[in-house]
Amino acid sequence: MSVLKIFVPATIANISCGFDVLGLALDTIGDEMTIRKVAQKGIRITKITGQKLPLEIHKNVAGVAALALLAEIDTEFGFEIEIDKRIKPGSGIGSSAASSAGTVWAINELLGKPFNTTDLIRFSMEGERLASGVAHADNVAPALLGGFTLIRSYEPLDVVSIPTPKELYATIIHPQIEVKTSDAREILKTKVPLKEAIKQWGNVGGLISGLYSEDYALIGRSLQDFIVEPIRSILIPAFDAVKQQALSSGALGCGISGSGPSIFALSKGEDTALKVADAMKFVYEKVGIDYEIHVSKINKQGIKII
Amino acid sequence: MSVLKIFVPATIANISCGFDVLGLALDTIGDEMTIRKVAQKGIRITKITGQKLPLEIHKNVAGVAALALLAEIDTEFGFEIEIDKRIKPGSGIGSSAASSAGTVWAINELLGKPFNTTDLIRFSMEGERLASGVAHADNVAPALLGGFTLIRSYEPLDVVSIPTPKELYATIIHPQIEVKTSDAREILKTKVPLKEAIKQWGNVGGLISGLYSEDYALIGRSLQDFIVEPIRSILIPAFDAVKQQALSSGALGCGISGSGPSIFALSKGEDTALKVADAMKFVYEKVGIDYEIHVSKINKQGIKII
Repeated sequence: MSVLKIFVPATIANISCGFDVLGLALDTIGDEMTIRKVAQKGIRITKITGQKLPLEIHKNVAGVAALALLAEIDTEFGFEIEIDKRIKPGSGIGSSAASSAGTVWAINELLGKPFNTTDLIRFSMEGERLASGVAHADNVAPALLGGFTLIRSYEPLDVVSIPTPKELYATIIHPQIEVKTSDAREILKTKVPLKEAIKQWGNVGGLISGLYSEDYALIGRSLQDFIVEPIRSILIPAFDAVKQQALSSGALGCGISGSGPSIFALSKGEDTALKVADAMKFVYEKVGIDYEIHVSKINKQGIKII
Repeated sequence: MSVLKIFVPATIANISCGFDVLGLALDTIGDEMTIRKVAQKGIRITKITGQKLPLEIHKNVAGVAALALLAEIDTEFGFEIEIDKRIKPGSGIGSSAASSAGTVWAINELLGKPFNTTDLIRFSMEGERLASGVAHADNVAPALLGGFTLIRSYEPLDVVSIPTPKELYATIIHPQIEVKTSDAREILKTKVPLKEAIKQWGNVGGLISGLYSEDYALIGRSLQDFIVEPIRSILIPAFDAVKQQALSSGALGCGISGSGPSIFALSKGEDTALKVADAMKFVYEKVGIDYEIHVSKINKQGIKII
């Protein structure tokens, strides 16, 4: 095996109450990547289609993540990376995470799996550090593991896979505006009211419980964010209207995907997720904002060989 | 049926990361209560043994909780309450909660169960309001439901039962000093660093996940409190030494029970829980502090007829 063609899923981080700790992987949206093991040592990004992104390895998250991996192993080989970038950078559904996670996952496969998933998350986080200034794991973990993931702790890194209820679907609408992750982080307050924090961790507990017990109503009641959404939603056009429409169309919950501007909703069943998509689209069409929209089952597998 | 004799469990609220939202019920420590349905309307507390507590119904949490229940139903009967108070008030293991929860549970049984558990929690919370000034539910919920409970939300009240791993045991040491719940609440800061709050809800997620998956190591890693314990532990003599001894004797985790002064530890297996008890005792014996100590399986049933 010297070449791998893979699908790397887009991901939703935060998931309302789970700011900085929860993420999930999508099934129908993702990048395609081709990674070749070659005789010439080192990392080369040979081709990027779909988006304009730098080929220089120190400027591209895929290159940075690959270098983090190669720094921990002696190998006689090098690797060439081709990226068909289908997840728009800055969309809030883990574009940089997909490039990082896909690269290190494929290189690890081509080397005979010397590293475990926690290692791969760690390497991918170096790509995230380049992209946003913060080495967060809440997109790369679900991209690598599939399903829902919990980053229980960063020091030490402790990632927990959470079960995915069978009928859970995501709807994601991406208004065509830019929100920089670094800006979205800067507007957050460094201190939060204890009362609100308690509500938030009550909801995290409820959401995890709902995912284990496949209690869709509990999942819905728990999808509330008292800390971050009230602040960040200001950066997203017509957020309140989109959310209200999604909920009144049957979504279990609705919130900001990652640091935005994409808005996600979770629904029980594909029919509801499609209705929610129509309702979300309707808002942006009315106010004249361009958008992309996706409906996807939750991806339980993570990265797939295609 | 016109008389019920019941066992009402002591409870541990907060459980490290789960401040104000998590609680669990104990099996070997609790009050015994006798509730009689009588012809004379109203509530009378006829006898209290074990502790000096007021018989006046407006001054006793059992009376207040019973009145909250009777305010929502027309009945031709009255009720007499006898309490054999084995849980010391002010110990931090749900003494007031047991009196409230036991009373309303028994009255509901004697009336043919007109109310559901959420109602009973609501009535019991009125007792808690009398005891501490705050109508908290994190002791009364596990007393009524057994096992681990999550208060996802207070408005509206949303209580979730969480599975209890089979081999989980609690060790509780009660140093014979008084910490008032109201004082323990007043010293808390009203704002907390977002960074610490994120760690806390990561741990709540981890703990709930560990309880569902019976992953004792994950339960142990998640039993950390970055927000409340660093402040409240100052009120408890030799807290750090007791905790360190418990952990080095094999406890999964150790923290403040409720608002203290009791300290709890959770362990896998009774043998370890007993070793942890010895280690905790050793600290208080060395510094000359009187204590009571208990080792208990987690009580999955809640209140029991005896």
